[in-house]
Amino acid sequence: MGANSADSLSPVVAADHPGVSELFAVLACGEISAFYRLADDARMSPTMAGRVALARMAGAEMRHFERLESALTDRGLDVYDAMAPFVTPLDDYHASTHPSTWLESLVKAYVGDGIAADFYLEIAGRLDPSVGAVVREVLAETGHSEFVVHEVSAAVQASTKEKDRLMLWGRRLLGEAITQSQYVMAQREALTDLVLTASGDLNGVAALFDRMQQRHAERMAVLGLV
Amino acid sequence: MGANSADSLSPVVAADHPGVSELFAVLACGEISAFYRLADDARMSPTMAGRVALARMAGAEMRHFERLESALTDRGLDVYDAMAPFVTPLDDYHASTHPSTWLESLVKAYVGDGIAADFYLEIAGRLDPSVGAVVREVLAETGHSEFVVHEVSAAVQASTKEKDRLMLWGRRLLGEAITQSQYVMAQREALTDLVLTASGDLNGVAALFDRMQQRHAERMAVLGLV
Repeated sequence: MGANSADSLSPVVAADHPGVSELFAVLACGEISAFYRLADDARMSPTMAGRVALARMAGAEMRHFERLESALTDRGLDVYDAMAPFVTPLDDYHASTHPSTWLESLVKAYVGDGIAADFYLEIAGRLDPSVGAVVREVLAETGHSEFVVHEVSAAVQASTKEKDRLMLWGRRLLGEAITQSQYVMAQREALTDLVLTASGDLNGVAALFDRMQQRHAERMAVLGLV
Repeated sequence: MGANSADSLSPVVAADHPGVSELFAVLACGEISAFYRLADDARMSPTMAGRVALARMAGAEMRHFERLESALTDRGLDVYDAMAPFVTPLDDYHASTHPSTWLESLVKAYVGDGIAADFYLEIAGRLDPSVGAVVREVLAETGHSEFVVHEVSAAVQASTKEKDRLMLWGRRLLGEAITQSQYVMAQREALTDLVLTASGDLNGVAALFDRMQQRHAERMAVLGLV
């Protein structure tokens, strides 16, 4: 049986599990990838305030990258070697979810980060505390989401057409995120074993994805996308 | 007569000089502008290590921006309103010094930041200590320049043609920086008065630009560009 609430259970993944380094590496690669995606998307901002908001989010991603880099270095690994297997799947995710408007880029920053955070934070509860602490630290809310919530909810209140478009967009982001995470899992045995161990079994993984879908819906609602 | 060494003299610009807010604003605008220039230039990087190095520098610029934003807020100003007059001259500087190769972008990051830092740090010594401290803090060496020095000096040692190209490029960066700074000064009376007061008089400003040229040459030498 899968774990219904991973956080309430004790750690089951040891600090020396071979998937831990892969977990840090995929997170590090995600931070760099998000940094450049945010910097790119900022071009679409109609205002300087929008450009600054995205630069702030990108700056937070870099601080998290540096935390992961030192965690990998502490484990005797080179951050670039460790990240190499994850570059293509993350590039593919971003290529398949390339925003065509400023609002799409804001929804992606908010919803995409949220999906990733849900996944990793669920797992963090079952990892050795020293490992879980790093994961929580780099996924901590960076406090920059109010800008996104304010901009998007104002826009969708003003336009039903915009709202319909962005609801479809949110669904696509969730679908692509799940597709790419399954692709990563299929390639990386140690990471897959870590996720399976943390979730209990395959039913546990399925329950985790169900909870992620539920939280995705809640997040869309915060943006006025219901 | 101009001050030969501004740092050894006591502060002459009061904290409530109207040019102080303009100084913070042009610095803040420079940080955001540099952030996006670094993120753009990273596309040319042949390696993930290069992309990460530029993202790190960009992240440091954002931390500095946030410091200036709070300094402006403390003075009762809106950071976006305050930055508005400086957006065009900074965009013009970047448009006129758009790097066409990865090495040109590295030289620009190192040499361009250095020129700006020389200018502002010279002035910082003559400002009220509370103001000078903010300027020094946001221009502090971020420790990311070793990457640039290593990459550029290796490349110019290996190719005389590359060295010749980059020497011309460095000269152009200095010229454009001086042109744009003079344009800004011509437009902003309070800021110009601050610079004149800090430098003593027009001779002092000329001496300051002479010292900046000298330090530019030293910086080029560090990159192997002599």
